[in-house]
Amino acid sequence: MNIPGLLPEGLRDSLPPQAQALASLVRTLTDVCGAHGYERVAPPLIEYESSLASGSSRERLRFTDPVSQQTLALRSDITGQVGRIAVTRLAQQARPLRLMYAGQVLRVRGDQLSPERERTQAGAELIGSDGPAAAAELLQLAIAALATAGVTGLSVDLTMPTLVADLAAAGWPLGRASLAQVQALLDGKDVGALKSLGADAFVPLIAAAGPAPAAIIALRQLDLPDAILARLDAIAALAAGLDGVAVTLDPTERHGFEYQTWLGFSLFGAGLAAELGRGGAYLVPRPDGTQEPAIGFSLYVDGLVDLGLGVELQRRILLPLGTPAAEAAALRGEGWITVAALDAETGAAALHCSHIWQSGQAVPA
Amino acid sequence: MNIPGLLPEGLRDSLPPQAQALASLVRTLTDVCGAHGYERVAPPLIEYESSLASGSSRERLRFTDPVSQQTLALRSDITGQVGRIAVTRLAQQARPLRLMYAGQVLRVRGDQLSPERERTQAGAELIGSDGPAAAAELLQLAIAALATAGVTGLSVDLTMPTLVADLAAAGWPLGRASLAQVQALLDGKDVGALKSLGADAFVPLIAAAGPAPAAIIALRQLDLPDAILARLDAIAALAAGLDGVAVTLDPTERHGFEYQTWLGFSLFGAGLAAELGRGGAYLVPRPDGTQEPAIGFSLYVDGLVDLGLGVELQRRILLPLGTPAAEAAALRGEGWITVAALDAETGAAALHCSHIWQSGQAVPA
Repeated sequence: MNIPGLLPEGLRDSLPPQAQALASLVRTLTDVCGAHGYERVAPPLIEYESSLASGSSRERLRFTDPVSQQTLALRSDITGQVGRIAVTRLAQQARPLRLMYAGQVLRVRGDQLSPERERTQAGAELIGSDGPAAAAELLQLAIAALATAGVTGLSVDLTMPTLVADLAAAGWPLGRASLAQVQALLDGKDVGALKSLGADAFVPLIAAAGPAPAAIIALRQLDLPDAILARLDAIAALAAGLDGVAVTLDPTERHGFEYQTWLGFSLFGAGLAAELGRGGAYLVPRPDGTQEPAIGFSLYVDGLVDLGLGVELQRRILLPLGTPAAEAAALRGEGWITVAALDAETGAAALHCSHIWQSGQAVPA
Repeated sequence: MNIPGLLPEGLRDSLPPQAQALASLVRTLTDVCGAHGYERVAPPLIEYESSLASGSSRERLRFTDPVSQQTLALRSDITGQVGRIAVTRLAQQARPLRLMYAGQVLRVRGDQLSPERERTQAGAELIGSDGPAAAAELLQLAIAALATAGVTGLSVDLTMPTLVADLAAAGWPLGRASLAQVQALLDGKDVGALKSLGADAFVPLIAAAGPAPAAIIALRQLDLPDAILARLDAIAALAAGLDGVAVTLDPTERHGFEYQTWLGFSLFGAGLAAELGRGGAYLVPRPDGTQEPAIGFSLYVDGLVDLGLGVELQRRILLPLGTPAAEAAALRGEGWITVAALDAETGAAALHCSHIWQSGQAVPA
């Protein structure tokens, strides 16, 4: 027996005005993506767990489907579903294929930054290219969407998720360490351990992090393969193209970028410690075993609500009993929210109305 | 092992342009409700199963919460959640309390009219009154929302879900039948069985169904208690207030109106056999055991998409490589959807663009 109104841990009712703010922000973010040619898809909330490619399987809510007797899961991320659509139902469409989405995601439990188990995710994915032009488009689109939603003090953290693996593959000596060990030691910025294991070559990467222009200069000092130098050029152009946005580069950061390839990014705004969104380049697995390059981003809309964004100014007017329907419609046409009285007693204040409609005039209540 | 891209029975990917049509229709429907003073709430997709008041428990997808070890369920209806919010978190707000919502609902399996297990529901609820004025407001609002969304040929089927029980309570003789038997026989329009069981009094109700004015005249011929006559007056006024909408009354129809009280209604439009929405008066259970009167409606947005509504006219223009950002922004400001070329090869047609931006002009592609 549950207490009426009590919700399970990590789940909540969104009330006015936050629920409207969330809807309004989703509208703004998807409108911006739509205006840039991204077309909306809406995958289902639940799928066979085995076909949900993105998000950690440990964080998914699972159950047995009474119909198919198979394990279904509530999605904890939408990116993988969009990729699945791109390489199956939309496999024949010309590339680049630009898709966008907004919807809810669920997870078994919240984390330190956010206790919520149900969140709203919006995003855009470009499938068929992960080159510099696509990266610039997506990063600028993410920033335009957040700026249009009202976010100020935008900053971007760039990372190169496959850099360490690529350098090792190009011959940088790992010493007595494994690749995974070197990556973990770089994550922990553990210079001593890297040196004692003979992976000294990777140590300078730790210092080459910070504001993008300086970090790029520091990286260029190192003996990098041409392919990596080309990526650095792309990242330098990317950073230079983001007017008024603070850009940092942490080349070895991989946390949360396990699926990304040459580029990852996190988006932050003034007033919120948690990231507002993230994205990067990745590969979509095709049914035939090959992979298709892609790049995209996800935005976490609840964080924008927490910032107080998306709240619409409301002009509410109380319509006394018997107000003609045409007058009410005309007021709504002028942008008023009309609240019809059901009796002669209830006042404007109780119904959150600033005005009353009297003798054909909007009179302050 | 599932075939990539295969979804469980009853679940589907919504693709362009249908996914955008659905989003656009939700926007239209909730905008209309919002303009009438209904404030948005967004309850969670999953709750303790024991607190989900509306919708049949047999049709809910259930699972054990790994966190609380309790049974959670995906909602199959949102009305009950809105009622829960009204009598708990918003219990102190003045009445009438006007709330609206839009979101997804899920069920174990589809039905004959619709195989879908995931659908989008939008609706409005007025809590604190279920009188004639509230009923008129909600029914007109539902019709205005559907008409604004583009539905034509609107019709409304009215019903009086508690009529038979109320007449029995007022002394109409059930003969040797139980109330449930009489209700079932009325549903089956089984005149013979009603007579043979001695429930003759209820037989004339069967004929008193059809276009509202005639049905109301037929009902007035019967020996009805004053309370029922007052409801008939309200229903007559309701029907008269719906200009250009065909209104029928089937006073004993109860199927799907198990939770409704004196009034239920179903909404239909041209081109679709399935109902577009339904609603009625009901009682919200308060935590203290009392009940609060309410009236509301739910709209099934997927049906509107099936009717081809909500599709937005798109003017897409291809921007060649190197188009200045300011020109692109200006085009979007004029209502164009801009699609940036990532290379010099991909043509306008492949990217579904009707125009190309050339020398400062939109040129047909």
